[in-house]
Amino acid sequence: SAMGCKNCCSICLQCLFGYETNVMLVINNKGVGALFRLIQFLIIAYVAVYVCWIQRAYQDTDSVISSVSTKVKGNILTNTSIEGVHVWDVPEYVIPPQGEKSFLVLTNVIQTPGQTQSKCPECESDSDCIEGHTEVHGNGVQTGHCVQYSDTIKTCEVQAWCPLENDTIIPKPALLGAAEHFTVLIKNNIQYPKFSFRKRNLLHHINSTYLKNCTFDRKTDPHCPIFRLGHMVTEAGEDFSIMALKGGIIGIFIDWNCDLDFPERFCIPKYSFSRLDNKNPENNIAPGYNFRFAKYYKNNKSIETRTLIKAFGIRFDVIVFGMVTAICDWVMLTCMKDRDQYAKRKFIHLNQNGDSVPLVSKS
Amino acid sequence: SAMGCKNCCSICLQCLFGYETNVMLVINNKGVGALFRLIQFLIIAYVAVYVCWIQRAYQDTDSVISSVSTKVKGNILTNTSIEGVHVWDVPEYVIPPQGEKSFLVLTNVIQTPGQTQSKCPECESDSDCIEGHTEVHGNGVQTGHCVQYSDTIKTCEVQAWCPLENDTIIPKPALLGAAEHFTVLIKNNIQYPKFSFRKRNLLHHINSTYLKNCTFDRKTDPHCPIFRLGHMVTEAGEDFSIMALKGGIIGIFIDWNCDLDFPERFCIPKYSFSRLDNKNPENNIAPGYNFRFAKYYKNNKSIETRTLIKAFGIRFDVIVFGMVTAICDWVMLTCMKDRDQYAKRKFIHLNQNGDSVPLVSKS
Amino acid sequence: SAMGCKNCCSICLQCLFGYETNVMLVINNKGVGALFRLIQFLIIAYVAVYVCWIQRAYQDTDSVISSVSTKVKGNILTNTSIEGVHVWDVPEYVIPPQGEKSFLVLTNVIQTPGQTQSKCPECESDSDCIEGHTEVHGNGVQTGHCVQYSDTIKTCEVQAWCPLENDTIIPKPALLGAAEHFTVLIKNNIQYPKFSFRKRNLLHHINSTYLKNCTFDRKTDPHCPIFRLGHMVTEAGEDFSIMALKGGIIGIFIDWNCDLDFPERFCIPKYSFSRLDNKNPENNIAPGYNFRFAKYYKNNKSIETRTLIKAFGIRFDVIVFGMVTAICDWVMLTCMKDRDQYAKRKFIHLNQNGDSVPLVSKS
Repeated sequence: SAMGCKNCCSICLQCLFGYETNVMLVINNKGVGALFRLIQFLIIAYVAVYVCWIQRAYQDTDSVISSVSTKVKGNILTNTSIEGVHVWDVPEYVIPPQGEKSFLVLTNVIQTPGQTQSKCPECESDSDCIEGHTEVHGNGVQTGHCVQYSDTIKTCEVQAWCPLENDTIIPKPALLGAAEHFTVLIKNNIQYPKFSFRKRNLLHHINSTYLKNCTFDRKTDPHCPIFRLGHMVTEAGEDFSIMALKGGIIGIFIDWNCDLDFPERFCIPKYSFSRLDNKNPENNIAPGYNFRFAKYYKNNKSIETRTLIKAFGIRFDVIVFGMVTAICDWVMLTCMKDRDQYAKRKFIHLNQNGDSVPLVSKS
Repeated sequence: SAMGCKNCCSICLQCLFGYETNVMLVINNKGVGALFRLIQFLIIAYVAVYVCWIQRAYQDTDSVISSVSTKVKGNILTNTSIEGVHVWDVPEYVIPPQGEKSFLVLTNVIQTPGQTQSKCPECESDSDCIEGHTEVHGNGVQTGHCVQYSDTIKTCEVQAWCPLENDTIIPKPALLGAAEHFTVLIKNNIQYPKFSFRKRNLLHHINSTYLKNCTFDRKTDPHCPIFRLGHMVTEAGEDFSIMALKGGIIGIFIDWNCDLDFPERFCIPKYSFSRLDNKNPENNIAPGYNFRFAKYYKNNKSIETRTLIKAFGIRFDVIVFGMVTAICDWVMLTCMKDRDQYAKRKFIHLNQNGDSVPLVSKS
Repeated sequence: SAMGCKNCCSICLQCLFGYETNVMLVINNKGVGALFRLIQFLIIAYVAVYVCWIQRAYQDTDSVISSVSTKVKGNILTNTSIEGVHVWDVPEYVIPPQGEKSFLVLTNVIQTPGQTQSKCPECESDSDCIEGHTEVHGNGVQTGHCVQYSDTIKTCEVQAWCPLENDTIIPKPALLGAAEHFTVLIKNNIQYPKFSFRKRNLLHHINSTYLKNCTFDRKTDPHCPIFRLGHMVTEAGEDFSIMALKGGIIGIFIDWNCDLDFPERFCIPKYSFSRLDNKNPENNIAPGYNFRFAKYYKNNKSIETRTLIKAFGIRFDVIVFGMVTAICDWVMLTCMKDRDQYAKRKFIHLNQNGDSVPLVSKS
């Protein structure tokens, strides 16, 4: 009814425009009042000085600091018309050789031996020859001469490392496709400096004999730090033999996310693998992963020659990430800053290596 | 008046030392009381268990994880008294050649060909010759002999790679100053693991044809991943021809700061460039960027000789940074952990590449 | 007494099940009510829009962005049966040579000169010879032939770079143990992009003359960026001569944790050093740090030969970390986004280098 509605509206308005305030009881007693203000002051001082300033309790997380070294093992025998029978070992196919956290394993190569600084026709181009002109995508600097390249085609002569590389035909199957069976040992050392927490991916409970013979497998050997290259590529959802043709980038993710409210032994690395470059031709440019490098020689007449190598390879990027959190600390508004205090609380102690070892294992 | 002041003071004191408390109404009814406590318990349980423990709602940010590959293009023709006419291509002037996120482009070189292990006078020093002594800033190990260096100067003889390098005169203009016109393709793949968010700097809406011919320009081509070296140095506020003389470090910053409350297509990389080393001579040491490396040969008599190269160059460091935030999530105290759930909310789906594609583009 | 206990229980129950609520005073006056709601709305708007949205005040921290370059100095004279007298200079013993943030200094080497692609007996194995078989830990690919290795032992012939390396005996003391006396200059440039804060480890108040001659010492020269390798290893708690034998990894930590509520001059880097790899044989595999690389030559008959080098070395990883916090900003719920505003507040100004300089130093 209209009456009810009018009533309802009036109640709503009262609700909206009614000013509500608590009924306060004020006791005008100086003793009680002073005590009340003192308690207020102490609480504010505690929060401002102790919790915020000294403990910095709101900083309850820390990001990982990491160091990685890698070591690849394996040999491949190839038989090509240019090189004959050739055995490739680690110093030849791992670039750079020193075991960084990002390492490239050659899977396919186009070699152009015996290059010297001279003049030769650039076979792919028949544009006008402008002296000194450098095509960004060309192979050298044009000399201004137009020379007979074949019976029918005249092309620009270039000053370059000649003979020019012919990279139109990529070896198929990939020359070093057997790299699939190589293994890589990954050593990873991490730190959470705010919590003075250090750990390695070679875990305490694993002995050296096991480490020498194991290979990583998600089910049977989840803590083994030795990985078959082919296995990682397969887990990333790729076919090694196809990827080997033109190269690519595989990410080896090591996830150190931990909750430090739990004992330290629960903080173990989780490995995962995925392809990082875009293999599809759309929205893409220069698919795969390749680069050129050269080995330099001097021939009998002391003229510098080089073997140019267009190298296709799979780059493995070891990417370590993680953040520790300590919810209890967050809730309690406290955060252990002192390593010893922290260690005592977690029932662990530090050995000479700086590793934290559960106290239980000592008894 | 004194009376008013006294009054005022007394009011202030009352204010300061008055103990205020709310007037509370207590209903001693077991039914109502139990319901009240149950509701209190449920709220605390919800906050403690669901919001803090399961959703970890206070973690509303995540740092970027990144992978970078680079590819430089260009050729330079030089004509020097030592080498004659020489064409420099990518395998010669990009170090290391394999396209890491930090790459160095040579801009100036001092070559010392034909060095062998032997004895020669160290021309810059005339101190006493102590056998076996190594000056930290010298070129070799002193043999203890003092030899006639020129008509007037006697210097210490050193065991070293001889002849010694003479790096007092730096080529001016820079030998490879034309590197200004080179281009570099930068491919960058990022992840925010907490939000299962992946993206590349080769954006969805850009096709391959465009990518092959574009060059980055803040106004006309802000999403093109191909950069002219000279353009980057100019944007960093430097003169390429001056910087090329002694080298330096340029930072290529890729900023992936995003607000994931907005649709994924708004999350695009922002490029910026700045010089990272200190070019001013005050408060500085060894300005510029140079290092020495060598190419090793064996001559006809199988004696090892080398060409020592003091390389001045511009190192480009691709520095990827960013943090995603999700304010809505922060306000609502919820945070999507599941990628599919997240995708649904953002009206996007994942294609085979792992890229997130707006659902709209499918219709 | 039982009476008292019963009383006590009853009070407790009353406490537990008593429903407490404030006594509210409601003033039904439209003017007062409207003002009350307006003030409420303004407060909510301020918090939601200004504090959270524009200022993002809850983001009170930022992680460091860093760029590093390094330069090692020193020479070593060695005298071995293979090479004779040889002086090692920086291009030979620092790998990679270009001064990255992770650099390796060779400390011990096993050289195998004159290797060519050919067939030779693999002396360490006497298993059955399977043609084409590659042992993961072997040196080449088996040819299927079993050859007389010595009077008593027959072994498999391998296709490999022959002669094979014999790395059973490691030179002791380490060939390049004198690397202890080398120095390294570390230049580090950092940024906190959210606070537009930039700084270098070459501090303002230090002049160039000092920088050229100083060496880092925690007590006397804590801001000198030139470090003696031996000093760093000692601070990490290791013996250089023992570590040099088999190599290892040393972390050079640069801690840029700062409180930006203090003036900028208080934000100075703190250096620390620690060993990152596990030297103990238990729970370990392949202790130390080594890798193989090769120098390639062509002999008179244009056959490729190489000198294989098994390099033991100490890798130094410069690890820069840090987080700035601004507690005042956190407490006040404000955060300076604008660099100029920030600079004004901190009484600093920016010079052309982008360094922030205290305004005081100008007066």
